[in-house]
Amino acid sequence: MNGKNKEAIRVLGIGGSLRKGSYSMAVLRAAGKLLPDGAKFEVADLSGIPIFNQDNELKPPQSVVKFKKQIREADAILFCTPEYNYGIPGYLKNAIDWASRPHGDNSFKDKPAAIISSSGGMFGGIKAQLQLREHFVYLDMHAVNDSIAVSNVEKKLDSDGELTDEYTIRRIKELLKELIEWTDRIAVEK
Amino acid sequence: MNGKNKEAIRVLGIGGSLRKGSYSMAVLRAAGKLLPDGAKFEVADLSGIPIFNQDNELKPPQSVVKFKKQIREADAILFCTPEYNYGIPGYLKNAIDWASRPHGDNSFKDKPAAIISSSGGMFGGIKAQLQLREHFVYLDMHAVNDSIAVSNVEKKLDSDGELTDEYTIRRIKELLKELIEWTDRIAVEK
Amino acid sequence: MNGKNKEAIRVLGIGGSLRKGSYSMAVLRAAGKLLPDGAKFEVADLSGIPIFNQDNELKPPQSVVKFKKQIREADAILFCTPEYNYGIPGYLKNAIDWASRPHGDNSFKDKPAAIISSSGGMFGGIKAQLQLREHFVYLDMHAVNDSIAVSNVEKKLDSDGELTDEYTIRRIKELLKELIEWTDRIAVEK
Amino acid sequence: MNGKNKEAIRVLGIGGSLRKGSYSMAVLRAAGKLLPDGAKFEVADLSGIPIFNQDNELKPPQSVVKFKKQIREADAILFCTPEYNYGIPGYLKNAIDWASRPHGDNSFKDKPAAIISSSGGMFGGIKAQLQLREHFVYLDMHAVNDSIAVSNVEKKLDSDGELTDEYTIRRIKELLKELIEWTDRIAVEK
Repeated sequence: MNGKNKEAIRVLGIGGSLRKGSYSMAVLRAAGKLLPDGAKFEVADLSGIPIFNQDNELKPPQSVVKFKKQIREADAILFCTPEYNYGIPGYLKNAIDWASRPHGDNSFKDKPAAIISSSGGMFGGIKAQLQLREHFVYLDMHAVNDSIAVSNVEKKLDSDGELTDEYTIRRIKELLKELIEWTDRIAVEK
Repeated sequence: MNGKNKEAIRVLGIGGSLRKGSYSMAVLRAAGKLLPDGAKFEVADLSGIPIFNQDNELKPPQSVVKFKKQIREADAILFCTPEYNYGIPGYLKNAIDWASRPHGDNSFKDKPAAIISSSGGMFGGIKAQLQLREHFVYLDMHAVNDSIAVSNVEKKLDSDGELTDEYTIRRIKELLKELIEWTDRIAVEK
Repeated sequence: MNGKNKEAIRVLGIGGSLRKGSYSMAVLRAAGKLLPDGAKFEVADLSGIPIFNQDNELKPPQSVVKFKKQIREADAILFCTPEYNYGIPGYLKNAIDWASRPHGDNSFKDKPAAIISSSGGMFGGIKAQLQLREHFVYLDMHAVNDSIAVSNVEKKLDSDGELTDEYTIRRIKELLKELIEWTDRIAVEK
Repeated sequence: MNGKNKEAIRVLGIGGSLRKGSYSMAVLRAAGKLLPDGAKFEVADLSGIPIFNQDNELKPPQSVVKFKKQIREADAILFCTPEYNYGIPGYLKNAIDWASRPHGDNSFKDKPAAIISSSGGMFGGIKAQLQLREHFVYLDMHAVNDSIAVSNVEKKLDSDGELTDEYTIRRIKELLKELIEWTDRIAVEK
């Protein structure tokens, strides 16, 4: 980053579905590789996060402790989500619910973010994006207004799950550039 | 029911949070008791439903098989949900995701529904209702437009978790009446 | 209609933008021609409806009086809207606001409806649809859950503004069939 | 402002309904008086803005030219809106549509904003806020996540239309402080 932040940006990727061969996870991994040199990228592992129960929020499982630590240490969050029933998947919402609790310990607070969604259909999960942005309001996150909705996602990946669609690659590079600039712009100097 | 359906209506209650002493579960149970004589009411048990993984959707766990059967056999669905991060809780969305899959076997299809939400705050979970209605569009459900958002819910329950607030009781009775009339109105004669 | 309603269905088309050569108006007119024989169709003229001012709601202008009468006399409403800033256009919202007032005289109450949206972009105005559905909740309308979002609309019309895209024509026929069946299904026998 | 911006902040108030004695306009004017010393405040006059017609967007009326100039010259926008049919009023959406056009000349682009809504009901117009935030995404605005929904607004104003409710006054001061800090935080140094 060329601005207030002298150090390399750390981006946490959140999303992907849990199935093997997940398209949205393939897009998220591809996005990580499209970050500029020096940027650090890791993908959160949601697979071990259990169903949220408020009775347990003061003693969260290790998977949640790790997830919250990853969020806190990230400079910016990149979501990549499929769309289930016009929203984000329950497992993703469940992970977000854990990370926002207990009251006063919302790990997402004040984090910059950007959204990619993907689907096998024509609209690329755009409706899930709108619901996710509403979650951001409560979470007090600051998302880039631009976003990407990858339609017909299975046609944009090769047989190894590598993203090969030129237009999508270009758009992801643009979005990541915007996310980095936005993260730098809203960074509070220490 | 006095209309096309000669038999007693069967209402399935879905929602409630998973914690002991859940306020939304208390409201849901109270609503069940406010149904007219003869109506049948049961509450779905979401506590055993695991995180959805599409790889397993063709061989769902027994908890999901039971949940889907309850939905199919119900004439109408009554949701009672808290609000987490401006949406429905992840565990509830997760249960809905299971019940809508696999493709072509969406148990919620064509079901009438009504929504109650509750929260400890001023707005009673109204934002979660709006997101839930968007899920209904994809699920092809038919919800009553009226709804109830129970604000300051903990003050409307007594120490035994019984709903004691007269206004809320009256509104729930109205909503249930509307749900029953709507269910009867859209019923397809066989 | 083959059901409870013995008479031909009357559908009111609402929407279209006000500019000459409006694409959404072209789609709305095309939809009118795709209704089954016997159905009656007219398009509301929004061009003369002024900006709403609650001080005048008890003595609305003649354009509003006519609009409200058309809505009341219709069996079903077909919206066809462009998307402006992720919502329906201000002029359409303004017309809806007039028709819903004064309190107790909401002309849209209990009307069945269906939505078509169109745009020059990839997503066909789908976000405007979601906002319109939220208006329907307050208006107490009953919309078909299916809908059509016509992307790249200018390529689907010929130089005379006639809809020529086969897929869109087929989808509109399906949606109109659903609207007619839904209107019949929820009709209250008199 | 104590940060990057050395000059007094200029806040443009947008909203209020058009009727005489508008409650939301009273709240907007009250908010203007609660800004810190030195801040400049003016309220946009929407009353002369006609219905948008894209055919005229290249030669907008003088009322729109003035409105767009006010937006461009403002450092931050404060919306205060009633709720009509779960959204912002048509006249407000219409003014926003004008200000966002023609393509490439969106006056709202990159502006910080905050939202107050008000209603005579229990929920203070919170649903209109959610729709307005969706408009912001397309408009590329950056809103403070906090907001105020003034319920039972007519009881919080005295007979002269002055805001007298202590809680609301305190909340507005907080929100304005957040808006000023946010405006300063995201300001791009020149």
